[in-house]
Amino acid sequence: MKLNCDMGEAFGAWKMGLDDQIMPFVDQANVACGFHASDPLTMAKTVALAKQHNVTIGAHPAYPDLVGFGRRNMDIAPAELKAIIQYQIGALKGICESQNTQIDYVKPHGALYNTMMADFSVLDTVMQAVSELDATLTLMVMAVPEAPEIKAMAKKYGLTIWFEAFSDRLYTDEGRLMPRKEPKAVHASFDLIEQQVVQLCETGTLTTASGKTLAIHADTICVHGDGAHALEAVTQIRQLVDRLNHNTNVT
Amino acid sequence: MKLNCDMGEAFGAWKMGLDDQIMPFVDQANVACGFHASDPLTMAKTVALAKQHNVTIGAHPAYPDLVGFGRRNMDIAPAELKAIIQYQIGALKGICESQNTQIDYVKPHGALYNTMMADFSVLDTVMQAVSELDATLTLMVMAVPEAPEIKAMAKKYGLTIWFEAFSDRLYTDEGRLMPRKEPKAVHASFDLIEQQVVQLCETGTLTTASGKTLAIHADTICVHGDGAHALEAVTQIRQLVDRLNHNTNVT
Amino acid sequence: MKLNCDMGEAFGAWKMGLDDQIMPFVDQANVACGFHASDPLTMAKTVALAKQHNVTIGAHPAYPDLVGFGRRNMDIAPAELKAIIQYQIGALKGICESQNTQIDYVKPHGALYNTMMADFSVLDTVMQAVSELDATLTLMVMAVPEAPEIKAMAKKYGLTIWFEAFSDRLYTDEGRLMPRKEPKAVHASFDLIEQQVVQLCETGTLTTASGKTLAIHADTICVHGDGAHALEAVTQIRQLVDRLNHNTNVT
Amino acid sequence: MKLNCDMGEAFGAWKMGLDDQIMPFVDQANVACGFHASDPLTMAKTVALAKQHNVTIGAHPAYPDLVGFGRRNMDIAPAELKAIIQYQIGALKGICESQNTQIDYVKPHGALYNTMMADFSVLDTVMQAVSELDATLTLMVMAVPEAPEIKAMAKKYGLTIWFEAFSDRLYTDEGRLMPRKEPKAVHASFDLIEQQVVQLCETGTLTTASGKTLAIHADTICVHGDGAHALEAVTQIRQLVDRLNHNTNVT
Repeated sequence: MKLNCDMGEAFGAWKMGLDDQIMPFVDQANVACGFHASDPLTMAKTVALAKQHNVTIGAHPAYPDLVGFGRRNMDIAPAELKAIIQYQIGALKGICESQNTQIDYVKPHGALYNTMMADFSVLDTVMQAVSELDATLTLMVMAVPEAPEIKAMAKKYGLTIWFEAFSDRLYTDEGRLMPRKEPKAVHASFDLIEQQVVQLCETGTLTTASGKTLAIHADTICVHGDGAHALEAVTQIRQLVDRLNHNTNVT
Repeated sequence: MKLNCDMGEAFGAWKMGLDDQIMPFVDQANVACGFHASDPLTMAKTVALAKQHNVTIGAHPAYPDLVGFGRRNMDIAPAELKAIIQYQIGALKGICESQNTQIDYVKPHGALYNTMMADFSVLDTVMQAVSELDATLTLMVMAVPEAPEIKAMAKKYGLTIWFEAFSDRLYTDEGRLMPRKEPKAVHASFDLIEQQVVQLCETGTLTTASGKTLAIHADTICVHGDGAHALEAVTQIRQLVDRLNHNTNVT
Repeated sequence: MKLNCDMGEAFGAWKMGLDDQIMPFVDQANVACGFHASDPLTMAKTVALAKQHNVTIGAHPAYPDLVGFGRRNMDIAPAELKAIIQYQIGALKGICESQNTQIDYVKPHGALYNTMMADFSVLDTVMQAVSELDATLTLMVMAVPEAPEIKAMAKKYGLTIWFEAFSDRLYTDEGRLMPRKEPKAVHASFDLIEQQVVQLCETGTLTTASGKTLAIHADTICVHGDGAHALEAVTQIRQLVDRLNHNTNVT
Repeated sequence: MKLNCDMGEAFGAWKMGLDDQIMPFVDQANVACGFHASDPLTMAKTVALAKQHNVTIGAHPAYPDLVGFGRRNMDIAPAELKAIIQYQIGALKGICESQNTQIDYVKPHGALYNTMMADFSVLDTVMQAVSELDATLTLMVMAVPEAPEIKAMAKKYGLTIWFEAFSDRLYTDEGRLMPRKEPKAVHASFDLIEQQVVQLCETGTLTTASGKTLAIHADTICVHGDGAHALEAVTQIRQLVDRLNHNTNVT
């Protein structure tokens, strides 16, 4: 089990996230590419920081909506969406190659991520975009019960998939995140987070809001790099996952 | 002698240039990268068009000034300028690789081009940006009397240089373009253009405004893809250069 | 019956529309405010042109989507949408007041226009935005069978409404525009346009795609300022409407 | 003597400045207008906050350079600069009028401010822009020895001027701010700040880096709303200025 985190979300004079402090504790950095956050200089600094800590770099492309942080759905036609994704991955690739490092994966951001998980025709466009650019890139998507369908689609494009799960969010019976407005949507204690991570790692399942057990294969857990307690939370999950990974390896 | 032309300068719903008609007549397409013109979908279409006509593709990076078309000077610090250039080249590279083609060169646009030709510390930053990303890329700069100095700088970065000349502009004794506000700055007849191109190709010299003969080595001539008579002018220069190239090869 | 036309849709170096030629023939100019098209200098020139021809000026606010020309729907929360609209109207108002002229009305653009006509909660936000800024401004909306409902909503906000109809588009039985992908969606001949305008002016009705007669009160007809035959079409509709208005006044 | 502070410098999801905490302690809020910082919703919130604390609202227009925070000089032609300024003032005016409040003054931001203080032809364009829009608006500029020249220029445009001084910066003999890279450019202790404010208020003079006494009339002092000690510093200067104002009024 790996840990991934959104990184490089500053923009010009504006800061966001504790990248310097969080980077040492994660395995995969989802680097913003300038459409929802970041700018070329911020991207260069983020890539340097990831490289320094041997963190795997992923492109984090988004809808072109800076003021909305890529969180608002936009009706974008497939050909344009494909070009938007290839542009952003290419831009980060250019920054990486300039520092003798590379991108290993792509994780769509915000509304684009949500839309592709809700509408697999959008996911298909995302896969096409990535595979056309470089089919050795891995696509990171949400770990959901429809994983077989997603894997079949990825196979068509010659792509590898990494599934990510959320440690601090309650899941619906459909294997989707409970909307934040619902009570208990976000786990209030580390005990609940720990329980969910242990279950994911040891049994490959999740317990949903209704108490149902759902089979969910996850390769990586998404952690958050901003907010008052981000560093503490990431450190705790890091220690937990290291222990669980060690047990798995020993077994 | 080659012909190069700025291409892909549409933006969203706005058109610019006769790319479809001009592309068949040029050797090198300077493709805008989204900072002064173009957008991901326009870039994808422009790359497809260039590929279809076997035209060499170059990145045409600019200052981040869409509303000013990259024509206004901006005080940008070297580290940021480097990242801005690498971002734009990378973005176009991503689009090209998605279509199984490639970028062969970089030609800075507008105010960035003018500034780097006037201030070689900026040219140094541009060279560093390009060579860090990919030192096999060629940098296209203005053909000026300081060519030896530029070549020495390029050698330091392991870069190749292509020098471009202007067929329809009067030159000052310093080997710079006469500002457009001056009388005779732009050649009014094709006879004057032809004379300048022939002289460039056959003797490697230019006749300046004061009548002085200036040694100028040029690898490529810049032609314009927009304006009422663009297509006619490009066709004429294409025929002229083809004839001159043929003579050179025969000799 | 008046004629209104979208104006000032250039952006920086990019041109769009034949504003100079069309302005003399319309009564109302919907001036883009920089979010889907236009920029401050273009707005200043457009306002000067409208003033010169005694054309009434309206603000044409849009979603913040320059590359998509404001044609793509965006999920924007009401408080932000209100601020976006007030910002754009204010900006154009500032340009107008600097030239000793004024805005008389507001007509939302593109996807914002379509969304507010399909979802009256969005129309409510638009009305609130306009009335908070200046309740003496008129809101221009599409002439639809739900006019009474719209007028009631407007009354709540103290706003006046102008209804606009389309002369060159086929209507559905619900009083909406037939999507462009459908056959006959756009009237192919001026005879069809003339017939629709005459019917609108003389009887306050429209004949829909199925042949149904629909009561539609229209105060203004939308004409188009770009495209190959824009000037010819606008001139014809101008003459037609002048004749119909004269008959009405005589009666 | 008043206190003014830059406000509303958040942008979308990015925060900047302690507006909520600082607003109660200042007299004048320079509100960003969306070109270097802020967005419509942030502007609406900032205006509401200023209104709540009875703080005078000023427009803070800038060059169109969001990623550079308006701090980089841009070569913008006078007609465009005028339109850019009128657009921004108008936009904030629209937001203010929507909340039944108003703008009282204009203070250019960043590189535009520096450029207009160094090149009075740019200041002339700024004055023209403001006076065309509304000559009852006051223009806030830097308090410099050339005040008589500035006042003469303002008189030509029917504008009132407020001069602002800096409490925490060392001045050159020319009455300009010592560049930040120089030692002692920023006053390290509150004692030095206090001394400068007292001298400004009581004698209308400043002591420059070389020890020279310079006559400088200031109407307002610029304080900073971001940084670790912003709130403490503003509170101290507020108390100091209140005491000095009281003395003046008593006298």
